[in-house]
Parts: sequence; structure tokens; C-alpha cells
Amino acid sequence: MQHILAIDAGGTHTRAVRADAAGHCLGYGVSGPGNPISAGTEGALASFTEAALQASGGGNVPPFARIVFAMAGHGAGLPLERISASLAAVGIHGPVSVESDLLAMFCSGTPSPDGYALAAGTGSVAARIVGHRLDRVADGTGWLLGDAGSGFWIGRRIARAAVADLDGLGPATALTDLLLAELGLGRTGGRATGRPRELLQLIEALYALRPVQLSRFAPLAFASRADAVAASILRDAAAELAASLRAVREEGVTGPLTIGGSVLSALLDTGALNAEALGAGGAGGGDGGSPIRVRDGAVGAVVLALVRGGVPVDQGVFDRIVADVERLRAP
Amino acid sequence: MQHILAIDAGGTHTRAVRADAAGHCLGYGVSGPGNPISAGTEGALASFTEAALQASGGGNVPPFARIVFAMAGHGAGLPLERISASLAAVGIHGPVSVESDLLAMFCSGTPSPDGYALAAGTGSVAARIVGHRLDRVADGTGWLLGDAGSGFWIGRRIARAAVADLDGLGPATALTDLLLAELGLGRTGGRATGRPRELLQLIEALYALRPVQLSRFAPLAFASRADAVAASILRDAAAELAASLRAVREEGVTGPLTIGGSVLSALLDTGALNAEALGAGGAGGGDGGSPIRVRDGAVGAVVLALVRGGVPVDQGVFDRIVADVERLRAP
Repeated sequence: MQHILAIDAGGTHTRAVRADAAGHCLGYGVSGPGNPISAGTEGALASFTEAALQASGGGNVPPFARIVFAMAGHGAGLPLERISASLAAVGIHGPVSVESDLLAMFCSGTPSPDGYALAAGTGSVAARIVGHRLDRVADGTGWLLGDAGSGFWIGRRIARAAVADLDGLGPATALTDLLLAELGLGRTGGRATGRPRELLQLIEALYALRPVQLSRFAPLAFASRADAVAASILRDAAAELAASLRAVREEGVTGPLTIGGSVLSALLDTGALNAEALGAGGAGGGDGGSPIRVRDGAVGAVVLALVRGGVPVDQGVFDRIVADVERLRAP
Repeated sequence: MQHILAIDAGGTHTRAVRADAAGHCLGYGVSGPGNPISAGTEGALASFTEAALQASGGGNVPPFARIVFAMAGHGAGLPLERISASLAAVGIHGPVSVESDLLAMFCSGTPSPDGYALAAGTGSVAARIVGHRLDRVADGTGWLLGDAGSGFWIGRRIARAAVADLDGLGPATALTDLLLAELGLGRTGGRATGRPRELLQLIEALYALRPVQLSRFAPLAFASRADAVAASILRDAAAELAASLRAVREEGVTGPLTIGGSVLSALLDTGALNAEALGAGGAGGGDGGSPIRVRDGAVGAVVLALVRGGVPVDQGVFDRIVADVERLRAP
């Protein structure tokens, strides 16, 4: 009986799971960044082979029935042949296919073929899933054009609020000193060319970052929720995420809502966003249950590898995959 | 009697004027981009020497009493010694100093030492001027952090509105088809991975641009003012620019308001912004006059070169400089 290999390639970690055709998970591996855009092609391929070797218990194993990758942007332009060749070079063989990371995240939370997913980390995106396929996606259009309510979106709002505060264009906010401190700057006093000196230093420090790196400031808003500006940023982020989810809701499609990403977790934990606002209380196509939090797409990648091979995944099989992956992950 | 050389180094053109100590303008030159950031150091230096040679009537001229450059970002890190050396190499000598391009723009509109300036092109900025110096600047903090109401700001709003329209997250708008057409795209129909195909194509085309290049879409909003989304973008841009100007207004500082930049002109010409909203009608430190439109900082660079040398510039001298530059520019 041939095994399957499921690989969840994320922005910071890559996870691989080896399972048999009944969903018994037999091996697990974890390595570094697996996103070809942020890690580079060679970096991503190295992460894939490292995690795959760990999960396989070494190379030169019997060919897999299928090797399923869960990746953002459907592989971000990385040809499947490159992935196959790099795995084959360490003795790992089998037909490679790529699934959406968002779909894998959904499938990490439920065996249901239908439902909804909402994620907010550095970026943000919502999706309706029907028959284990993405049926409708909203937002996820990146830092420049969308990703409303994401870590970048919150970080940029924080940066603009601090700049506006120092510039006299916006209200005073506790975020200003927090942001200056985060960047190793302080209130220098004094003015140059008609501006406060600390504003000039702040602008220089912020433009030295790549835009998406502004997401690292998102925790500052959670750390100063008593501040009116910080509170309104978080309130707006919550409203944007709820709107993205509303846009994919459809009366006829019921099923659970799975949620993922550090920013979405923090919004829920701090009460800036509540489950009712996500329609998980039964409104608009929800199934009346609470949102299901998932930490990554490892379980979902296994589920998709089985489902795509025609193996039905019922609640029993699903629960066992979850338990297996949990056990294999334990240190 | 030594002459002065005034050079207005802009993003698309560099203008040079040679004048005597009484402000009689005797030579004029124009060349390409003079911004070291966008044109590169060598490109900017080449533009400087080309315009300077034209204005001087050739090289190997008697040393100038002063050579004043009007530049964004106070020269954007280009050392004065580099500028001096490159002019000296073609026989043009004299002490070089750099002034703010915004200050030169103000001085192109009035001989008054005090007043206000508002500019909106690709970026946007407001300033209070006292004694021919920048006393207080608001915004001008760049595309990522501010520049509210600028060409980039409007272009990004247009891009986000079109993406939200196709994504089902925002209202339908005429801007969508205009933007698709501007990028050589159309309504393809069909969906892929849960999204309309034209949305995927639009996102790819927009991320292929450098962010500031989104400013090229600003004219689309002016072209579709009957559209509710376009109208609200222009209304918001006008409000942001008025707010930046309000932030620099001070009761005790009176003087004219000079305005510059293609976006600000278009907002005024289309009625999206009216002079009263800029406080030019007498409120908040205005002098009660209409805003003075200027096309660049060439006249202002001459004014600053004279003023910095201790030559007073009254209305008569100013009017003659304006007339001289106008005449020298005529083809």
C-alpha cells in the first residue's frame, strides 16, 4: 500500500507529514521558510527536501502515491518539475500537485467539504469552500491593494498615525512613543526645515524597511488598547475582516468557519472582534458552531492528499489525523 | 558686478537662470530631470551642467557671486562638493548652496517673505514661510506614510476601488473599466481559484509597477467625476489637502498662498476644491487674496539667490524677474 506525502509550505516554517492511504500518519518533519517569494526558489526547495526527508525517515523510500503541497499563490510560479526534481535528487518520488494554503488551513479544522475560512497574519483573506475547492475568495490582494485588517494594514495605520501625530495632522497617540522606541528612536526635540527632528528620523527609519515589514508594528496597537487611536485601528481592522467574510457568505452553503493567523487570533483574544461579528452564531450561512482555530495547514494537507486520491475522510479519520499529527509534533 | 546663477532642479526638468545683482535676468537654460533620487546622481549632475551652460552662454565665464539650487529633500544626499566639481569641470565657478524646492515654489509666486505654500503633484506638502525660510511643514512624508491628496494617493485609491469592485468588497465603479483599459486589460469573464480572471490580471499588472507609479492613474478620477466613487476620492483628496494647509496656518503669519502641482491645479479647475476651502478668502491667517498659481521654482530660485545675498526684492524687482524669465523662456 503506497503512502502519501503532505507538505504545508509556509512563510516561516515548512511541515511535512507521511501517511498511509487510510490516514495513519507515520512521519513528520519541519524545516524553514517554504515560500518561494520570501525565501527564494533555492531556499524554498531546500526547506521542502529537508522536511520531506524527516517525514520519510530518510531518502530512497518507495515512491509515494501522491505528494501534495499546500502553498500560497498556488506555488508562486515555482514549476512542479523543479519541485519533483529536487525531491527526486534525495530519493523521494511521486506525482506532485499544489493546493491553496488557505484551503489546507480550512481542511486542518474540519473534515467538512463545505464551509468558510478567514485568515489574518501579515496578509488577510476570506474564502468560501465547496466540495474541498475554493469557490469564492475575497481580499488577499496584497499590501498595496487590499489585505484589509491584516498585520501590514494595522502596522501601516500605526506608522501613519505616529507620523500624523508628530506632523500635527492627527491626534496625539501613545503609539508614537511606542513606535519610536521600537525603532530605537526617541523624542529628540528641536526642529529642522520646518519639522520636528524625531519626525525626520522616523520617516527615514520607516522608508528603510520593505513595506510589508510594517506588519511587525501590529503588536503595538494590541499593547495600547486604552489609546483611542490604537482602539480605532483595531476596531476598523475587525470590521474589515468581518466584511471580507461577509462577502464570501452564501445562504446555500453551510459548514464550519475555520480561522487562522496571529492577527486574527489576537483580535479575538482581546475582544476587538467577537465571534458573533463573524456570523458564526448561525447568521448568513454559518452552521451555528464556534469558529475553529487552526495553527497551520499540516493536517489539511494530509486531508487534501487523501481526498484527491478518492479516500473519503469522515470525522473518525479526521480526528485520528489530528491526533497523529499532534503526537508526531510532540518533542 | 558679479552675476548669480539660480537652478531649479525638478523631477522632470531642470531650469537655470543667470541674473545680475539687481535681478535682471540675462540667460536661461532648461534640461532633463534634476532629482538625484529619480534621475540618479550622474543624471542629475549632467542636467545641472547642461542647464547651467545654456544659462551662462557657454563655460569659462567669470565666477558667480553665488549658485543657488532649489531641490527636493535638500539635495537628497548629493554633496555640494560633487555639484561644485561638476560645474567647475565645465568652467562654471561660485559658492553653491541648496534651498527647498517648496520654498522656491513659494518665492516664484510672491516677493513676500511670509505666507503659505501648498503643492500636490505625485506627492503633496504644505508649508508656512516666515522671513524666506520654511517655518512649518506638514505632510510631504511620502507615498507610504502620507502625501494625502497627492497623485499617488488618488491613484492608489483608484486601484483599491477597482480591486474591491471586482472582488465584491466595494461598490461598482466606472473606474474599474477605465483602469483595466489603461493597463491594456479587459473583462475576460470566467473565474480561477475563486476569483474573477480579470481581477487576477489586474493585481499582477499593478504589482508590476513601482508603488509611486500608481500616480499615473490619478487622471482617471478626474475623467469620471460623475461616478460616485471617483467623486468621493476627489472630495477626500481636496479635504486632505485643505487639512494639511490648515495645519500650517498661524494667526500671526499673514501673506499670500502660492499653489503648485498638476493635481492641485486639476482639483481647483474641476471645482473639487475651491479657494475658500484653502482659507484664501481671508480666514485663518490668509491675506484675503486669491491663491497664486506657479508653474515651477525658477523665478523663486532667482529671488532666493538675491535675498540670500542681501539684495532686497520688492514688488518692482519681483515683477521684472517674472517678466524676464517669461521672455527668456519664450521659444
